[in-house]
Amino acid sequence: MKFCNFCGSDLAQRVPNGDNRERHQCTKCDEIHYQNPKMVVGTLVSDGQGRILLCRRAIEPRHGFWTLPAGYMENGETTLEGALRETWEEAEANVNSPALYQIFNVPRINQVYFIYRASLDGAFGCGEESLECKLFHHDEIPWEELAFSTVYHCLKRWFENPDDHQVMERTIDYPARASS
Amino acid sequence: MKFCNFCGSDLAQRVPNGDNRERHQCTKCDEIHYQNPKMVVGTLVSDGQGRILLCRRAIEPRHGFWTLPAGYMENGETTLEGALRETWEEAEANVNSPALYQIFNVPRINQVYFIYRASLDGAFGCGEESLECKLFHHDEIPWEELAFSTVYHCLKRWFENPDDHQVMERTIDYPARASS
Repeated sequence: MKFCNFCGSDLAQRVPNGDNRERHQCTKCDEIHYQNPKMVVGTLVSDGQGRILLCRRAIEPRHGFWTLPAGYMENGETTLEGALRETWEEAEANVNSPALYQIFNVPRINQVYFIYRASLDGAFGCGEESLECKLFHHDEIPWEELAFSTVYHCLKRWFENPDDHQVMERTIDYPARASS
Repeated sequence: MKFCNFCGSDLAQRVPNGDNRERHQCTKCDEIHYQNPKMVVGTLVSDGQGRILLCRRAIEPRHGFWTLPAGYMENGETTLEGALRETWEEAEANVNSPALYQIFNVPRINQVYFIYRASLDGAFGCGEESLECKLFHHDEIPWEELAFSTVYHCLKRWFENPDDHQVMERTIDYPARASS
């Protein structure tokens, strides 16, 4: 960041009055440009037969690798609305009974994940950001081709105990399988 | 937002290639300036005697009104680390056994709250952003002088059942008692 969004003047790295850490602040209008973590919202969708829905990414990062339907939360929506939107956009899937399931903190890349578990409602397709979408039994999961460590941990947890409905929180200090 | 942070040129409102909603995009370098919800992280701290710690705000918005110790999550930290940092900064309090307790979606103002319940560890003070910090029994809570509706809902829940340790999620569609 070099220029102020509001007046176009140069930004400086400084500690603003009343603050205790360096921010990008405009040298002319004093506007402070905060940078904060982003939320990634998505779903872990199962059919009635012990299978989980995965999408093969048609976009970077991790093009060609498998992921849960998920993406950045948008302004004006809730975490659940965002998760359902991403599920439709990436897999053209509708779901029933979504319930918050797993929260991941990934501080190295300034992300917090919200994953809802849900049941597949009817058919699904393949959204523009996916190369293909598919249901997998445990022994069919492409474990070596998962896009992100968060996907790995979510799948491990669900297949170990599909009846565990608790909301769990976990910090991932490094990307075990992927960069993001 | 009028100018590009990266090259200083004019921004336009447009739907970027491969996207499906309007963004601020640079007319020269094509950089997209996304705007996403922010996380507010904080604590609901009880002493051993059924009292909850509140802080009277020394800053806008809602100067002079009472709040839980909470604030914007920073890059590089987890939700829990942020909640503990805010608790120290606003109330100079250390806590034991923090556990995720309440998530609020407040889509109207693009915020998601993470509130951890915790036990007060020793004494507390008063941080720079607070006018005073104090422990309150249920019948002492300044219900009409709470800063935000999220604070109201958190306090109501805890006093109704202090032994409820479930992680709960709730959407607040409008600010019942306050604007933010």
